[in-house]
Amino acid sequence: MKNNNEIIVALDGTGGDNVDERTVASAVRFATVMCQNLKVLCFGTQKLNQALSVEKIDPKRYEFIDAPECIPQDEDPRRVLEGYTLSSMRQAILAVKEQKAQVVVSSGGTGPFVSLCRHLLGTIGGLRPALCARVPAGVDKYSLMLDLGANALSTPKDLRDFALLGQLAYKSLYNKSTPRVSILNVGTERNKGNSLVKEARDLIEKDQNINFYGFIESDKLFTDDADVIVTDGFTGNVALKAAEGVANAFLNGKGIQKFFSKLARPDWLQPWQYNGSILLGVDGLAIKSHASAGKEAVAVALVESGKFASIDLVESIKKTTLN
Amino acid sequence: MKNNNEIIVALDGTGGDNVDERTVASAVRFATVMCQNLKVLCFGTQKLNQALSVEKIDPKRYEFIDAPECIPQDEDPRRVLEGYTLSSMRQAILAVKEQKAQVVVSSGGTGPFVSLCRHLLGTIGGLRPALCARVPAGVDKYSLMLDLGANALSTPKDLRDFALLGQLAYKSLYNKSTPRVSILNVGTERNKGNSLVKEARDLIEKDQNINFYGFIESDKLFTDDADVIVTDGFTGNVALKAAEGVANAFLNGKGIQKFFSKLARPDWLQPWQYNGSILLGVDGLAIKSHASAGKEAVAVALVESGKFASIDLVESIKKTTLN
Repeated sequence: MKNNNEIIVALDGTGGDNVDERTVASAVRFATVMCQNLKVLCFGTQKLNQALSVEKIDPKRYEFIDAPECIPQDEDPRRVLEGYTLSSMRQAILAVKEQKAQVVVSSGGTGPFVSLCRHLLGTIGGLRPALCARVPAGVDKYSLMLDLGANALSTPKDLRDFALLGQLAYKSLYNKSTPRVSILNVGTERNKGNSLVKEARDLIEKDQNINFYGFIESDKLFTDDADVIVTDGFTGNVALKAAEGVANAFLNGKGIQKFFSKLARPDWLQPWQYNGSILLGVDGLAIKSHASAGKEAVAVALVESGKFASIDLVESIKKTTLN
Repeated sequence: MKNNNEIIVALDGTGGDNVDERTVASAVRFATVMCQNLKVLCFGTQKLNQALSVEKIDPKRYEFIDAPECIPQDEDPRRVLEGYTLSSMRQAILAVKEQKAQVVVSSGGTGPFVSLCRHLLGTIGGLRPALCARVPAGVDKYSLMLDLGANALSTPKDLRDFALLGQLAYKSLYNKSTPRVSILNVGTERNKGNSLVKEARDLIEKDQNINFYGFIESDKLFTDDADVIVTDGFTGNVALKAAEGVANAFLNGKGIQKFFSKLARPDWLQPWQYNGSILLGVDGLAIKSHASAGKEAVAVALVESGKFASIDLVESIKKTTLN
């Protein structure tokens, strides 16, 4: 039974690069402390069950469901769809499908997660689903960037879908009626870039529903120059990981430099604050947590997933796109 | 007349986003002070001539050549090839072609520069030219990354060419007999990525002359995990600019944070130290300086171009690939 404003999150408790049940259990405790109306359904092995007991979480705030199978990070999507019926990932997604939870959170492999969500939840109005991240753009400012790797290959029409999905999500999340939509490119001039971005621009410019702001370069990803940044999954993934790499080079200085770097980093650039990409375009709320996320980052993904659930993100996308 | 070990650099003195003759003239003075055997042929307008006189550079160390035309950064390549005979870019490249200089340096538009170099200098052994940058990988450690945007579209065979060119350049520059060559991808597993990187991998793996180290992710660009990083020009450009964007977000903190960030930045991560990408694969030494480079950065490009000239980079590439 759920309270009126209770949010139920289904957590895939066995994904992640270095699966550690204690990390998952700690994250669940953090999240339930940070967010008073959250309840977490924890799908995983008996080891996870034990770790959860050790954490002494309020028993009304979580539930353990035995799901002994784990899908390897880079398992072939076809094998994922045909098997793994007892896996924590499949069961957690099914909990959303069967309306036992409002949202699913997984740190498992992107390929398996995207395939299973598309297969079990279905897509909305023929739109191409994409992974969408919140990108920090200053103090209390965010952009949405998509796709971050749900698709290995994209067409111009896919990028148009991403623009629509990102714009709808931005409206719902940040309450701005006409978000600025840009396409990531190697220059801002019209003749710059490959045929994918040029043809996508032509499609998006023609679309009366999209407030198109032209091309944006990747050195402007963190500057609040756009609200929605559209790219293909390959480029988006490479861009964000390159940013991560430089941040790490800064923070892994030696001795006194490491100390200064911690003081220097603006609060809004702490990467764990932004964990949790939304798989937009599937008919159910699905959140991908970073595969190597620590307990704070997994807790953030759980809390944010609760926020996304509370604003009925998927319903508002369906309402607009299916009309 | 040139001394035995004198290096003559042809400088396109009117390129750059914010053309400022004083910046160019200061850079020439810096470079001639930093490097005692450098002589700079400065192609540009009379304004540049005046700025050079003001800097009081040893008159034996530079020469001004009147080149009143400037090619706009994003001029159509066909128009570049057909016109602009009096432009500083064309004349500086011709100086290399006519063996009046060993190397050309330009801050002009990438498109015009690449087109003109290919057209005037020709390519080597049918290899696809690519822009190659030195990427900092720790204290006194570098990787070479290519392509950074010489080509809007690349084939698997192009990426194989980039691997060959990068490997030869790395051998010459850093004196390592078997550099580690990797392809930039969204994951390190064999099934990750798009068809371009997978087919390029198949070609490169088969090539006995390449020491292939597999895929690399972009969060490892600055970690000395590879010597040569191969990618298409679109992805490479986006990755490096995203890295630049994060570094700027760090350095543009406010007040005391800005101060700490300067102390925190490792010396090897100062971006101006790495200005000057080499256009590998053309039959002549051609260096692209950042369009918005300041005087220190342009000076570095000039000095580095002198180093590349002194090790006969192009000759060693020709010797290997044409045999």
